[in-house]
Amino acid sequence: ADIVVLPGDGIGPEVTAAAVAVLRAVARVHGHRFDLHEHAIGGAAIDASGEPLPAATLAACRAADAVLLGAVGGPKWSDPNAKVRPEQGLLALRKGLGLYANLRPVQPHAATLGAAPIKPHLLAGVDLVVVRELTGGIYFGDKTRDGDGASDLCAYSVAEIERVVRRACALARTRRRHVTSVDKANVLETSRLWRDVATRVAREEFPDVTLEHQLVDSMAMHLLAKPRAFDVVVTENMFGDILTDEASMLAGSMGLLPSASLGDGRAGLYEPIHGSAPDIAGRGIANPVGAILSAALLLRHSLGLDEEGARIERAVSDALDAGVFTADLSPYRAATTAEMTAAVID
Amino acid sequence: ADIVVLPGDGIGPEVTAAAVAVLRAVARVHGHRFDLHEHAIGGAAIDASGEPLPAATLAACRAADAVLLGAVGGPKWSDPNAKVRPEQGLLALRKGLGLYANLRPVQPHAATLGAAPIKPHLLAGVDLVVVRELTGGIYFGDKTRDGDGASDLCAYSVAEIERVVRRACALARTRRRHVTSVDKANVLETSRLWRDVATRVAREEFPDVTLEHQLVDSMAMHLLAKPRAFDVVVTENMFGDILTDEASMLAGSMGLLPSASLGDGRAGLYEPIHGSAPDIAGRGIANPVGAILSAALLLRHSLGLDEEGARIERAVSDALDAGVFTADLSPYRAATTAEMTAAVID
Ligand SMILES: CC(C)[C@H](C(=O)O)[C@@H](O)C(=O)O
Ligand SMILES: CC(C)[C@H](C(=O)O)[C@@H](O)C(=O)O
Repeated sequence: ADIVVLPGDGIGPEVTAAAVAVLRAVARVHGHRFDLHEHAIGGAAIDASGEPLPAATLAACRAADAVLLGAVGGPKWSDPNAKVRPEQGLLALRKGLGLYANLRPVQPHAATLGAAPIKPHLLAGVDLVVVRELTGGIYFGDKTRDGDGASDLCAYSVAEIERVVRRACALARTRRRHVTSVDKANVLETSRLWRDVATRVAREEFPDVTLEHQLVDSMAMHLLAKPRAFDVVVTENMFGDILTDEASMLAGSMGLLPSASLGDGRAGLYEPIHGSAPDIAGRGIANPVGAILSAALLLRHSLGLDEEGARIERAVSDALDAGVFTADLSPYRAATTAEMTAAVID
Repeated sequence: ADIVVLPGDGIGPEVTAAAVAVLRAVARVHGHRFDLHEHAIGGAAIDASGEPLPAATLAACRAADAVLLGAVGGPKWSDPNAKVRPEQGLLALRKGLGLYANLRPVQPHAATLGAAPIKPHLLAGVDLVVVRELTGGIYFGDKTRDGDGASDLCAYSVAEIERVVRRACALARTRRRHVTSVDKANVLETSRLWRDVATRVAREEFPDVTLEHQLVDSMAMHLLAKPRAFDVVVTENMFGDILTDEASMLAGSMGLLPSASLGDGRAGLYEPIHGSAPDIAGRGIANPVGAILSAALLLRHSLGLDEEGARIERAVSDALDAGVFTADLSPYRAATTAEMTAAVID
């Protein structure tokens, strides 16, 4: 299988290296062959070629079976008024590969509840997946700026909503058959459309799945007050961005969480949900678990290697159970990236 | 002083009645005269007159010294595709009175930490105010809908950003001189403008105030992981809606939290941040504290009665310290709205 690796910026290269080491171990043990090719994206690509998503990178990703990404961005390129920004590379890649469904599972691990700001009794049994729409909404609408002001357009087509809701409902069928659709239908026209389309898709195509609606502001509350109430959560791009970072606090650390971005095409994109963390970059202390679990999702979703994916997930659990914690999880027992990776591979 | 009371829908009438009882007690004890006039808004107004904000209501609010509101909305009027919706009344009122700055203080009370989903050690000493922009952004931009899709425009002018940032910085001067401005400058043009304007206003007009910037997704995380780090938080309308509901979980229950909406004009609008809670409406069990503390903000901000406002806040603290809890705070010792109100008045 052809896998493109996009290390990106900050801690991106460190955590993708860890995930690659785990993939190589899986290949060795299970007798698979993974052809791994590194390409540039984000700030690193701007430095090398002036472009956040070089054409060669996009072409390689299009031809690959799957893409594993670290993170993009950092203070070096962070002038928000710069013409070219690292984040543009990531957004263009998501759009270019048609990856409209971003799956972000949150399953707090017993061993790391201590690191979560949420009370442990609320977290036992939490097992949710946010399906965030990833190629539409205010992220990609027309933007304007002049001396007096600025604007961003949030637009959604019926077809864009249908396909991501379908993906969420299909996922719910493999789980507890419950979908929570999040919008702001009491204020936004796109949300009223979202609610109509979600209701119709669920009723006509997934009568066996229960659909409930939540306003985004209430959801920001319920996610903390009763996280066990959720199975699959589906929402538009901007709300999904905010709610998944919030939901990461249920797991104790953003550093633990993986994501899979899927479309109807061939290649999926797999990345930890954390950013490039420039403050700790280059020090070998980043938590590689989010990237390693992203590699597990890659094996499952893009290569059909469910068993191998599950094996990685078990190995991560075992390492955490054994008390191997990076600094984000415990300041006292701070394992390095390499130690954590070695513990998982063992 | 002329105070317009807008009970609205659901538990709105119950909690405003409690706040009015407290205001009357203050008037009695301190020898003030408050002229209270009730008017219709929201679903109640739709039922009575077909309009969510009757002209008479808006005119009365314009002429008043302050407005005290309950909540609007409910299943009866909740078809998102209805032509007239209760929420439109609230949005039109905010816009009509020019109330561009919505202040939402969050100060967890020791007695109610048990009700919060957040670990208590993170909450000690938390004292923050979110200043949410309230008359701009995607709430008020052009909306379209046709058979293929829908759109909402998010627009901000320089002047709209300046005035709310100024308000936040001025507030910070009366507190710990720290402002966190929240945006999504790595993606949105309105956020890049927001960041530029906030930076300039703070540097030129408030050199004694420290301004930091946070991306909205990170903020959703930091608000839980290190809530003590924040003093004044300023952000645009939609982000403020989401973040304040999230922040309410720091206090244990939305039912505890008040808000003040201020403009440059005469009347301020004071309302609890909770909604109309149709599920418990009419049962006399709603938590009146958010509405009562909103009345305290009204005394402070619109009538200049700081001492009387502080007295109400102390009375609420004392009632909570004495263990008077409504059902949202404790299922075991569930005081009614009337009992909680009586405890505060005593
Ligand atoms: C880097 C940024 C553009 C990105 C986003 O907002 O989508 C990130 O926050 C994420 O969630 O993957
Ligand atoms: C009722 C609704 C329109 C309103 C808002 O979104 O502003 C509410 O959620 C609030 O926060 O006051």
